[in-house]
Amino acid sequence: MITDLPPIDHAARVAAMCRAANGTTLYTDLTDVRWLTGFVGSNGWAVVRGDELIVGTDGRYGDKAREETAGTSATVVVEQQAAVLHNRLVEVLGKDPVGLDSASVPHSLWEQLADEVDLVHQPSPVKVARQTKDEAEVARIEAAAACADGALAVVEPDLCGMTEAEVRMELEYQMRLHGADDRSYDTIVASGPDHGARPHHGASDRTIIEGDTVIIDVGALVDGYHSDMTRSWVMGAPTDRQREIYELVAISQQAGLDAVHPGVAARDVDAACRQVFVDAGYGDWFIHGTGHGVGLDIHESPFHSTVSTDTILEGYVVTVEPGLYRGGFGGFRIEDLVLVTEPVNGTGHRVLTHSPKRELK
Amino acid sequence: MITDLPPIDHAARVAAMCRAANGTTLYTDLTDVRWLTGFVGSNGWAVVRGDELIVGTDGRYGDKAREETAGTSATVVVEQQAAVLHNRLVEVLGKDPVGLDSASVPHSLWEQLADEVDLVHQPSPVKVARQTKDEAEVARIEAAAACADGALAVVEPDLCGMTEAEVRMELEYQMRLHGADDRSYDTIVASGPDHGARPHHGASDRTIIEGDTVIIDVGALVDGYHSDMTRSWVMGAPTDRQREIYELVAISQQAGLDAVHPGVAARDVDAACRQVFVDAGYGDWFIHGTGHGVGLDIHESPFHSTVSTDTILEGYVVTVEPGLYRGGFGGFRIEDLVLVTEPVNGTGHRVLTHSPKRELK
Repeated sequence: MITDLPPIDHAARVAAMCRAANGTTLYTDLTDVRWLTGFVGSNGWAVVRGDELIVGTDGRYGDKAREETAGTSATVVVEQQAAVLHNRLVEVLGKDPVGLDSASVPHSLWEQLADEVDLVHQPSPVKVARQTKDEAEVARIEAAAACADGALAVVEPDLCGMTEAEVRMELEYQMRLHGADDRSYDTIVASGPDHGARPHHGASDRTIIEGDTVIIDVGALVDGYHSDMTRSWVMGAPTDRQREIYELVAISQQAGLDAVHPGVAARDVDAACRQVFVDAGYGDWFIHGTGHGVGLDIHESPFHSTVSTDTILEGYVVTVEPGLYRGGFGGFRIEDLVLVTEPVNGTGHRVLTHSPKRELK
Repeated sequence: MITDLPPIDHAARVAAMCRAANGTTLYTDLTDVRWLTGFVGSNGWAVVRGDELIVGTDGRYGDKAREETAGTSATVVVEQQAAVLHNRLVEVLGKDPVGLDSASVPHSLWEQLADEVDLVHQPSPVKVARQTKDEAEVARIEAAAACADGALAVVEPDLCGMTEAEVRMELEYQMRLHGADDRSYDTIVASGPDHGARPHHGASDRTIIEGDTVIIDVGALVDGYHSDMTRSWVMGAPTDRQREIYELVAISQQAGLDAVHPGVAARDVDAACRQVFVDAGYGDWFIHGTGHGVGLDIHESPFHSTVSTDTILEGYVVTVEPGLYRGGFGGFRIEDLVLVTEPVNGTGHRVLTHSPKRELK
């Protein structure tokens, strides 16, 4: 466990969200609740009204919620029964209009609440704020990235001959030995002509053999914050085709990195990567978006795709991850996680993932 | 990885849901989609219309979706862009009324769809069917429970002196060595007077010491199916108070198990456990419900609580997990996972979790 992390100032976040709010705001997305209040649980809500913060949860989490929100002036409401807790929420919300993000609540709950309070759709102010990471958040993401780097360095020399599932197990174990609280997501180990062609293949009992393309997509979790990184290999001597495709992915990924700076349109980062593939005649081998934000969620705004309307700003932490995939061939993806910074010597980001990108010899 | 599992007959499930459906049904809950079609991914939907099944997902999952739904006659729709995939869904749904469970879709998506198709709230027929496990499902849950049993047997002798996080790491690693695909949920290791008093404490860097109460809540994942089990201990010689409280939890848990048979009201299982605590004057130390169904979700219907209206039927797999908690004392919980069966010699269930329940000496 990594213990020298700078503290997170939840009181400052609450103050900022109180200033941002117009009247009463209800948060039901548990990641929003965590970012705002510090409370981590599988059930709960937060209400911001004036300069007040009220957090509600059930009996399993009462002590935990009180301790985790101690840095704020939160009032914590705890009820064992879901129906009673719901009634307390309605009571807290009162008669004034209540802003709630309609994407963060099931339709059934929206309907129920709309009968009881004056509910108004409002994009979550916390979701907007979460895009910009403060120093404490960057420290956690960077520590997580270092755990994944450390784990991959241990496992990389022995890939050939292991099953995908064994590689995954060792990576996830090693990340914890390196101090991670957990993996960030189900580690992807995609090898050979079929699995390698699937960007989100899991990890099977297939044994990795000479000649395979191999994709490993691995991240760690530190105090709730995720890292995200992908590296690719050929086992043994590459064929000319493998060398060509791998080289294209490497060039594309560097073009994407070069495009990341404060103020860039997310779709332009996507375009920078995509154009390399299109120019080489491999446009239809690239079957996903080019990246996304990373923080308390592994996939969060902004998203870099051909239709994105997001702009990437200073303080965002985003991935750049082009790949090429084809059934019968396999695939490659290279992904780094970067912090968007004020430009220094023409570079508007700092790379947080440091595992070497191998050249195919 | 456990490889001798009986196959799951998705075609039979699709046929049953086609028979159950009145017109067109849309499934957006990914666990419902998995149960019905076999497709496992982080984005997708399924539509049942007449005797047709249509599955939609994005470019990351195209090959995977086609392979995983091969046992059905599914038509698989794959689009790289979210907006294009959404338009394909609207096209598939057509002009007839579409049943959708309003609890399984964000309000924003419901509103969008309601503008485009004739949307009607309908409790998910798949969620109802999922409560009753078939033999293939029981085999997976039982295999998962055996992985957790095996892991706990390795780790249990050495708890004292380890940190909670180390215990968690070893348990999760051992479950994989025993064949699990993964842990079922974040393993809970809650020790000592404060953490032990929190039913859903995670696992910290606190070292487990002599005199502690310790709760370990651990489950494994096998081919998507979860197990769930809790055991409790005192490190070293128990105090009289510890012995008294532990004994109450053990008696309560046995009373709950004794109550489980086909046709019992979930609230009566809860009452059987709760009454033991109330009679002993510890009613307010029991701060959560008594159990829940387990399957592709770790928490699924039915739920046993004082206000439950669920009935437990043959073929359900449910937990029985009373506990007592108090800050400054710590806590105990004992939990088994049981398959509800036709009564044999007066017992209407079969216990699937076999780790020994220690007596306090």
